[in-house]
Amino acid sequence: MTPPPESALDGDGPVFLVEPWTVRENELRIDRLPQTESVFALSNGHLGLRGNLDEGEPHGIPGTYLNSFFEQRPLPHAEAAYGNPESSQTVINVTNGKLIRLLVDDEPFDVRYGRLKHHERVLDMRAGTLTRQVEWTSPAGRTVRITSVRMVSLRQRAIAAIRYEVEAVDEPVRIVVQSELVANEELPEQDASDPRGTASLRSPLLCEEHMANGSKVLLLHRTRASNLRMAAGMAHTITGPDPMSVENESSQDVGRTTIATRLEPGEKLCVMKFLAYGWSSQRSRPAVHDQVVAALAAARQTGWEGLLAEQRDYLDEFWRGADVEVEGDAELQQAVRFALFQVLQAGARAERRMIPSKGLSGPGYDGHTFWDAETFVLPVLTYTHPDAAADALAWRHMTLPLACERARQLGLAGAAFPWRTIRGQECSGYWPAGTAAFHLNADIADAVIRYVDATEDTRFEREIGFDLVIQTARLWRGLGHHDVGGVYRIDGVTGPDEYSAVVDNNVYTNLMARRNLQEAARLAMEYPDLAEGLGVDAEEAASWRDAAAAMFIPYDERIGVHPQAENFTNHAPWDFANTAEADYPLLMNFPYFDLYRRQVVKQADLVLALHLCGDAFTAEQKARDFAYYEALTVRDSSLSAQTQAVVAAEVGLLDLAHDYLGETSLVDLHDLYGNTRDGLHIAALAGAWSGLVAGFGGMRAGTGSLRFAPRLPGGISRLVFRLRYRGNRLRVTVTHDSVKYELLEGSGLKLLHHGEPVTLGDTPAELPVPDLAPPQEPVQPAGRAPLARRVAQRGDTRQD
Amino acid sequence: MTPPPESALDGDGPVFLVEPWTVRENELRIDRLPQTESVFALSNGHLGLRGNLDEGEPHGIPGTYLNSFFEQRPLPHAEAAYGNPESSQTVINVTNGKLIRLLVDDEPFDVRYGRLKHHERVLDMRAGTLTRQVEWTSPAGRTVRITSVRMVSLRQRAIAAIRYEVEAVDEPVRIVVQSELVANEELPEQDASDPRGTASLRSPLLCEEHMANGSKVLLLHRTRASNLRMAAGMAHTITGPDPMSVENESSQDVGRTTIATRLEPGEKLCVMKFLAYGWSSQRSRPAVHDQVVAALAAARQTGWEGLLAEQRDYLDEFWRGADVEVEGDAELQQAVRFALFQVLQAGARAERRMIPSKGLSGPGYDGHTFWDAETFVLPVLTYTHPDAAADALAWRHMTLPLACERARQLGLAGAAFPWRTIRGQECSGYWPAGTAAFHLNADIADAVIRYVDATEDTRFEREIGFDLVIQTARLWRGLGHHDVGGVYRIDGVTGPDEYSAVVDNNVYTNLMARRNLQEAARLAMEYPDLAEGLGVDAEEAASWRDAAAAMFIPYDERIGVHPQAENFTNHAPWDFANTAEADYPLLMNFPYFDLYRRQVVKQADLVLALHLCGDAFTAEQKARDFAYYEALTVRDSSLSAQTQAVVAAEVGLLDLAHDYLGETSLVDLHDLYGNTRDGLHIAALAGAWSGLVAGFGGMRAGTGSLRFAPRLPGGISRLVFRLRYRGNRLRVTVTHDSVKYELLEGSGLKLLHHGEPVTLGDTPAELPVPDLAPPQEPVQPAGRAPLARRVAQRGDTRQD
Repeated sequence: MTPPPESALDGDGPVFLVEPWTVRENELRIDRLPQTESVFALSNGHLGLRGNLDEGEPHGIPGTYLNSFFEQRPLPHAEAAYGNPESSQTVINVTNGKLIRLLVDDEPFDVRYGRLKHHERVLDMRAGTLTRQVEWTSPAGRTVRITSVRMVSLRQRAIAAIRYEVEAVDEPVRIVVQSELVANEELPEQDASDPRGTASLRSPLLCEEHMANGSKVLLLHRTRASNLRMAAGMAHTITGPDPMSVENESSQDVGRTTIATRLEPGEKLCVMKFLAYGWSSQRSRPAVHDQVVAALAAARQTGWEGLLAEQRDYLDEFWRGADVEVEGDAELQQAVRFALFQVLQAGARAERRMIPSKGLSGPGYDGHTFWDAETFVLPVLTYTHPDAAADALAWRHMTLPLACERARQLGLAGAAFPWRTIRGQECSGYWPAGTAAFHLNADIADAVIRYVDATEDTRFEREIGFDLVIQTARLWRGLGHHDVGGVYRIDGVTGPDEYSAVVDNNVYTNLMARRNLQEAARLAMEYPDLAEGLGVDAEEAASWRDAAAAMFIPYDERIGVHPQAENFTNHAPWDFANTAEADYPLLMNFPYFDLYRRQVVKQADLVLALHLCGDAFTAEQKARDFAYYEALTVRDSSLSAQTQAVVAAEVGLLDLAHDYLGETSLVDLHDLYGNTRDGLHIAALAGAWSGLVAGFGGMRAGTGSLRFAPRLPGGISRLVFRLRYRGNRLRVTVTHDSVKYELLEGSGLKLLHHGEPVTLGDTPAELPVPDLAPPQEPVQPAGRAPLARRVAQRGDTRQD
Repeated sequence: MTPPPESALDGDGPVFLVEPWTVRENELRIDRLPQTESVFALSNGHLGLRGNLDEGEPHGIPGTYLNSFFEQRPLPHAEAAYGNPESSQTVINVTNGKLIRLLVDDEPFDVRYGRLKHHERVLDMRAGTLTRQVEWTSPAGRTVRITSVRMVSLRQRAIAAIRYEVEAVDEPVRIVVQSELVANEELPEQDASDPRGTASLRSPLLCEEHMANGSKVLLLHRTRASNLRMAAGMAHTITGPDPMSVENESSQDVGRTTIATRLEPGEKLCVMKFLAYGWSSQRSRPAVHDQVVAALAAARQTGWEGLLAEQRDYLDEFWRGADVEVEGDAELQQAVRFALFQVLQAGARAERRMIPSKGLSGPGYDGHTFWDAETFVLPVLTYTHPDAAADALAWRHMTLPLACERARQLGLAGAAFPWRTIRGQECSGYWPAGTAAFHLNADIADAVIRYVDATEDTRFEREIGFDLVIQTARLWRGLGHHDVGGVYRIDGVTGPDEYSAVVDNNVYTNLMARRNLQEAARLAMEYPDLAEGLGVDAEEAASWRDAAAAMFIPYDERIGVHPQAENFTNHAPWDFANTAEADYPLLMNFPYFDLYRRQVVKQADLVLALHLCGDAFTAEQKARDFAYYEALTVRDSSLSAQTQAVVAAEVGLLDLAHDYLGETSLVDLHDLYGNTRDGLHIAALAGAWSGLVAGFGGMRAGTGSLRFAPRLPGGISRLVFRLRYRGNRLRVTVTHDSVKYELLEGSGLKLLHHGEPVTLGDTPAELPVPDLAPPQEPVQPAGRAPLARRVAQRGDTRQD
């Protein structure tokens, strides 16, 4: 994933206005529709609607998704090998219920024809709605105003709703509104050479039932191979001038409500569309049918205004514990709220389903979840919306039997979670950067540790966390071994950096495995009943402690840095000087063997260890290691900039941290990787929060103490962030000179401010920011320095 | 590829009688047909006929092959990646011309029906023929004797011929012989989970022309995707009693000559079938047609007896320079001649085509050639039939532009030859054990060095060898680099052992690359005109010498052995004690990542370095290294036993060497890997010669001097081998006590006998075998010791 071609960023400028609580497009950019469909996606973690235009066309990618509703497809291998998964799972575009077509005196409303006098779309991050306002003159000269407001309910999980209003402007017009459910929409072709895309499946849904009666329309389908069943239903509340006709009809793949009336100038037709979705892998056709009809009834009972009020209430509560205020960089202010909003949308109501890498905003990566959910997304949810973090880990726990079965298939103990999946089965087609990336298992354990530390949720620890930590520890004990010198080695695995693979003693992996093993030993002692249930005896727990204590962390004495993995620093440097801008992302232009054998880093790996396992390094090591890897890291992955931001801030490179923070935060608003069309980069967006809170706030937690070390870059004058920790709600206000810690709710807590203990109760604590001797600026590979924040600040002039 | 299940070897005993110059099956074993079809395959390197029964059915795999006649097929990848080949090449079963069906009083002759009173097949390795004698009584009680003799001409490359004779025994019979050409035969399904198999293609041939006239029948087809054109023609000479009717007919996929007559008891019908094949990727339909018709005319002019005489003459000349006599182990005597015969058949008339890993005996491995041609097959041909070695290298030279293009695609200099291919394009679907196995390039250079040393063929060196050595040296110079300590490293490549992959500083690879670089520097100095032509300047040649001189050869001081690659000896040992017999071959039952991270060796790798780069090791290192790897080597590849035999002999483990020699020699006669059905293991068969000559003869050459160090195991009382070297023909006779060197042709040469210089002229030299202090027996992994030669000696009792 490459930073932007010039055109994408500068071309004719960003699509969105810079505003603190909204993302606004004030003229329609048809060329940017694929991107804006992702940015304007609405989701509650269960149901996701891309920001497609109400009338369906033109579109980039039409998209309606249900979390974990997938089709199975064969995974072909050029050469057979033991343990390769034979099939994969692909998210599918389910029945589209957001379609509302409009005829104006027999001319279909289509933004490509006639004259678009005004077109504005606004994502409101406090209201949780997408509003569209249009004034359009048909080719025949009739002008209408259209206002649509769309929402996916965060309170009523099965529900989405649209308020669609048409007004005649100058002359009387005959209006027909067709509100539809459409299954098996035609999808655009995908580029098969891009591994980040999706395998789009043609007509994945088979109709089992369709129904249209006086008040509602319903389509019920199932998938061919995965044998999942889904239903979508709609009902409408309509107001407008008489005479009006309303007709419902249905066929296998189309349900339609047709409303016809005539509007005098100034008259309005208003259609309130309530949409309900349900799916199941087990329940019968009538059960799924009834579930959807019931959800629809509940939503109509709540009503449009009621749904809006619930939505705002849900979001208010979220922002109270999550909002971040950034003064001095308006673009970043907007970006971090957009990021938090989208992270919430991805995880809010997933409820024992996975959080896909794109949320429910697009079909990229086949709709799979990866390690980035636990590593980058859950930390944000843990401190802002902890229930969602618990739910996501409960989903992992639900798939634990599959992970244990996979471990057995691989000849390993414990659990081997899938590198990429929808329902828990391994779906990775390239094992060196898939199954071999075992660190995912420690990442899951780490997410458990962090969540329990942040919430003291011992019920979760007993019911969910224990099994996850124990079974992943067993994996590590089986994967590693003591060599003849007594050192504990983990050989032949892949770390986070995908430009290396199948290496020995990846530092990040070994440190994370060490924590996993230590925590398992501790839990076994703490919960002897559970330990007995899993057959953990004293010998096994001791073997975990022994392995952790002997864990090999390679260090290159000659140059005084940690090699990312054993031997890494002996490899040939990548020839950055002779690598052209067009050669990035390198994976699209160089073979893996060439990337693997050289010192070139796709994404933070050793630097991620500096962040997540900071206690294993001295401050001086951190500075040296960061500078060393800075010169090798090309950021061909969107999962890198946030970690570089956090560690840059820690080692005192505050402006550099600010630059990296900009990149991770603006990844989708500025389409920095050129593939926002396929869906949002949820983990990179989560990095907007991490870059500010863990970066400039210096927050570290999860391994004993809650620590802060706030320090701002020149471009930010004031930073305020909130977080939830052990029943407390905390606000931290940072300026260049001082930091104020305030308890907004809760009984108080202890924290460290730049290493100094602070006990926080009802009285805020205000403490100075210690001086910093500015370190030397590191060098990035030619052409790979982050976009400087002056770009963002240029953005400021376009504001308000 | 696993050593045999008990049943395959012992079940109901070997299929073949043990005889010195023939392979004889004296009763038909229908269950063994797939194996015997491969063992009885006839080929001249251009055209190959599996030993299918004349009447076509029953069969294991029907097979008729033309070297390099292939179809293209897409190569699917579960995840796209830069540099992966998108398509592969698969050998196809071309028009079957060996079919001769027989009707006896309207009953089709089929060995599964009626009564088979006698059935014998004999492969005669001096005559170059396959003879079949049958006495069969039809279900209706009519008895006939059938004698067929089949040959594929070693002199007339396009030609095969069959003499088919039917005799009535007791009663008069009506006889119909249908001699056919059949295209697009139906093939059995292949097991897709076995990577050693083939992708069989349905109906790969499209008819462009079919013809039947008075004297001949011809079918001309082309392939769909690879767009190759081929023709097969036949003509007959028939003798038998009148009245006889002969009719020719043809349709798109069938050409048929039908001969009908009536035989009184004792009367015979004799059909001489002449078959001609031709193909081209460029020539027109009429040109290919005419080429086949012309070849047919020439063969008929030579006549059946003439073809037989040419064949014997060709083979007499071959055996004069190649025969090996083994006293004391009759099974091995037969096996080594069978092996040499099949190696000759694979390479004899390939003439600027590749030598496939199965020769032209079956469809295994898609008919591809691999590194084993240069590493194991060419050494045998170099010293026994050097023109064939030159031809195979000339084919590599022909594909050099493709290899240079592939190198450029991979971002490398020089040439990167394909890991597996038919026509020169990379066809490997799994790069870690394909493209990354760059040692193939040094193996090709080494084959050049060896050939030129053995022949002093300077014209070849200028026209073929120079380019191959220079372009492969360039590859190495680009693949490796000097680290900060000045050591030259080659990181991230795969050595011969396929249970490791993408490792740093594989000892075999680095040593072979060193030789490649040194030789390139020498050639650049020797041929300044050619060097200039390729743009080699003094700086480039110096950089080759520098890299060679600084080449890193890792050594583990702690345990005093060479790690196969850097870090290998730190890896966890494989748990052999808990690996069941049924778990082998490991690759079918364990994932690659598990094999890669452990100390387990599929096939000789460091031990191959001990053989081919022996000068880089002291005698003591050889003994220690051999013992170390002996305990780790499971021989899941048929490419291992011969190397273990050679090095076991060198370190004085003569009985062990004898055991390994037995395994490589009997690989197909005893179907030791259970997949002889897919074709012969040509490289393993070549090892029969290498094991005897390089093993017990101690022959080393190619890097300066011609050396012998003969020493026999207890089970062999006398060994005689012949070889060609620099225009001389040499015979070496070894007993337990002494060695006699004789010059049979040529002007004389210098050699070393156990390190002592000998100048050999007209007078034979007879020298004693020095005493040997027997080394300690090494240990193999549980259950993986080689089959002891007592099995073979039990075979002796079946002899005479």
